[in-house]
Amino acid sequence: MSTPSRSTPMDLAAAAAMRGVRGANPLVGAVLTAPDGAVLAVGHHRGRGTAHAEVDAIARWEAARAADPGLAALDTAAFDPADLTLHVTLEPCDHTGTTGPCSEAVLRAGFGALRYAVADPTGDDGGGAARLSRHGVRVEGPTGEAAAVALTARWRAVRAAGRPWVTAHLAQSLDGNAAAADGTSRWITGEASRHHAHEVRARVDAIVVGTGTVLADDPRLTARAADGAAAARQPVPVVQGRRRIPADAALHAAHPVVLQTGERDPHDVLAAIAAHPGPWPHGRRAEHVLVEGGPHVLGAWFSAGLVDEVMAYTAPLLLGAGLPAVAGLDVGTLADGIRLVPDPAEGGPVKALGEDVWTHLMPAP
Amino acid sequence: MSTPSRSTPMDLAAAAAMRGVRGANPLVGAVLTAPDGAVLAVGHHRGRGTAHAEVDAIARWEAARAADPGLAALDTAAFDPADLTLHVTLEPCDHTGTTGPCSEAVLRAGFGALRYAVADPTGDDGGGAARLSRHGVRVEGPTGEAAAVALTARWRAVRAAGRPWVTAHLAQSLDGNAAAADGTSRWITGEASRHHAHEVRARVDAIVVGTGTVLADDPRLTARAADGAAAARQPVPVVQGRRRIPADAALHAAHPVVLQTGERDPHDVLAAIAAHPGPWPHGRRAEHVLVEGGPHVLGAWFSAGLVDEVMAYTAPLLLGAGLPAVAGLDVGTLADGIRLVPDPAEGGPVKALGEDVWTHLMPAP
Ligand SMILES: NC(=O)c1ccc[n+]([C@@H]2O[C@H](COP(=O)([O-])OP(=O)(O)OC[C@H]3O[C@@H](n4cnc5c(N)ncnc54)[C@H](OP(=O)(O)O)[C@@H]3O)[C@@H](O)[C@H]2O)c1
Ligand SMILES: NC(=O)c1ccc[n+]([C@@H]2O[C@H](COP(=O)([O-])OP(=O)(O)OC[C@H]3O[C@@H](n4cnc5c(N)ncnc54)[C@H](OP(=O)(O)O)[C@@H]3O)[C@@H](O)[C@H]2O)c1
Repeated sequence: MSTPSRSTPMDLAAAAAMRGVRGANPLVGAVLTAPDGAVLAVGHHRGRGTAHAEVDAIARWEAARAADPGLAALDTAAFDPADLTLHVTLEPCDHTGTTGPCSEAVLRAGFGALRYAVADPTGDDGGGAARLSRHGVRVEGPTGEAAAVALTARWRAVRAAGRPWVTAHLAQSLDGNAAAADGTSRWITGEASRHHAHEVRARVDAIVVGTGTVLADDPRLTARAADGAAAARQPVPVVQGRRRIPADAALHAAHPVVLQTGERDPHDVLAAIAAHPGPWPHGRRAEHVLVEGGPHVLGAWFSAGLVDEVMAYTAPLLLGAGLPAVAGLDVGTLADGIRLVPDPAEGGPVKALGEDVWTHLMPAP
Repeated sequence: MSTPSRSTPMDLAAAAAMRGVRGANPLVGAVLTAPDGAVLAVGHHRGRGTAHAEVDAIARWEAARAADPGLAALDTAAFDPADLTLHVTLEPCDHTGTTGPCSEAVLRAGFGALRYAVADPTGDDGGGAARLSRHGVRVEGPTGEAAAVALTARWRAVRAAGRPWVTAHLAQSLDGNAAAADGTSRWITGEASRHHAHEVRARVDAIVVGTGTVLADDPRLTARAADGAAAARQPVPVVQGRRRIPADAALHAAHPVVLQTGERDPHDVLAAIAAHPGPWPHGRRAEHVLVEGGPHVLGAWFSAGLVDEVMAYTAPLLLGAGLPAVAGLDVGTLADGIRLVPDPAEGGPVKALGEDVWTHLMPAP
């Protein structure tokens, strides 16, 4: 069960963290090691509502022991929790969310030592390191390993700014069109892409679309499974722009709350979302916003520097002089282009989805 | 050494063929089996100038036996060539090219039986099946397995039309621009993409570019290694369009022959290439043409239905209202878009190249 590893436990934790999804919650990985450095368990966080990385690592360690109790007899030292070290990319939380404070889970597990790379910026009363230290755990951190720091850099900046995480969604042809010249756009991308996009809808609090898209397409903006069944939690639709949308728009029938305040500036849209009491599908606040378009709204969010993550779904299709997927950018020359970099989280920066290509990007640092 | 297989030998041969590259030569795979169906060797063709699939399979079989002579003693039956069957996706050739007729290689190896899926359309005097049959090989074919037929369908149509294979190259931003609004385009894509594109240049006979690109960028259109060293074989540049290019254009200094006949219609450009005596870098005729752009020239080739393969290099960059990578397509509505499908050859339909994404597509059937 214990696997020797060439990279450091923190490297391993950072790599495990990358398997998670970006959004309201940070990417976090955790690795449990024996005194000889052997890796006993690796855990990671899978996004809002799921176990935190520490709890995931503890559960895996317990499952492995339960599956083979003989292991304990083989190497007693490795299974006295007081001799073990938990390495976490982010300081364990000390607050009760969906899952209870990780600091308590670590205390309950009885580990002797904790190493963490980055301090927890979320707790009003500080992270869990202090509590663990008070209870006799040998705590080392923040240790600042680069890979672990990079994992949550954008997430911490977003958190510090007090705004939600913003994911931009582009569905386009190979030549970058969101619609053909006559405005037809259903469907440019294939079923697998649309299914993926619905999974993303189910994890966000709000979906922003422009008045142009609502008036042209009359979308429902619900999160649905492949069989059409509605997801348990539905995002709140937010309409950006000045024109009023019709009272009989499909949005209204599909959602109890539709937010439109007439704003055009993405900062103002975020402020309107922050001021709105909800109900938000995943909590008390909107912490994850998906900008689905259309082109002018996407352009405005990119220009404002408010996009934290890009998911581009590109279909194998050429539409020529159609509607560009991102419009209204103020880019005159190559050097002024909006540079992105591949995002390795959530299965890597590029993936085939049916006949389409899914590209996962983030702003260049 | 012999591996039991669940798929048929022809399936396996077709899958091996997909590892090759498209172009002047067909994708071909070959599998050698023992009387009990055990797979003894798998071979495939790697493109012009390299061993044909049959010869590759024979070489691998011989190498395996040479590496472990004891094998022969273990199972004599499996190593009497007369008891073995060679399965090939395409009928073995009967003409002397870079590598000598495959029919002779198969005779020399002494195999008792040959199965092939698709008849060889290239030999003026027929493929190698007849010769093998005359020499006592039990020949079965064309057997028509779908996977093997699909491998070369487009290649055979191109061959039947008597024209070269046409690869289109798109280098673009995520939002489908080949240049920013002011025309700047060096470099949109990264080093890994450009290196890949140079490898493709080295395997073609001709590179087509428009007068617009020559006048704007003054490209050399040479095939160079990452260190700048020129490839052994250089493509012939073909300039498409009416405007004359300057006598001091970089193209002229870089190549002994530059072809420009003033044509605008891609069919006429192909005819001009066919009529030209060369010298062509890879043989007596131009059999593989790379269309590198710019946008109007690409649009013309797509509109003419003359693109057999698309390699799109997409950089993680937004350029807004730049120059579309493909221009002048006559597509008004979604249903009229030019549909492509993923091409699994040459390492699959999608690949990360540095920070860029390489997408490999072919026309929808
Ligand atoms: N392929 C896809 O995934 C996809 C997705 C969405 C849409 N589409 C297509 O996109 C087309 C609609 O394009 P669109 O660009 O009009 O859609 P849009 O971006 O949804 O709406 C544009 C409108 O939003 C308002 N707006 C709000 N904030 C703005 C800002 N900061 N800057 C500029 N405008 C702002 C403006 O209208 P006000 O005057 O009301 O403020 C503007 O006319 C449709 O054909 C639709 O099918 C495709
Ligand atoms: N990102 C990339 O990989 C890439 C590659 C190439 C070019 N570019 C950029 O593309 C820009 C040039 O764009 P472009 O569209 O002018 O380039 P282009 O397609 O190379 O040239 C267009 C010209 O080709 C001629 N032409 C020949 N056959 C034609 C046909 N069937 N239809 C229309 N025109 C035909 C026309 O000129 P005549 O009047 O002379 O016939 C036309 O003006 C430059 O900024 C360059 O940097 C980028």
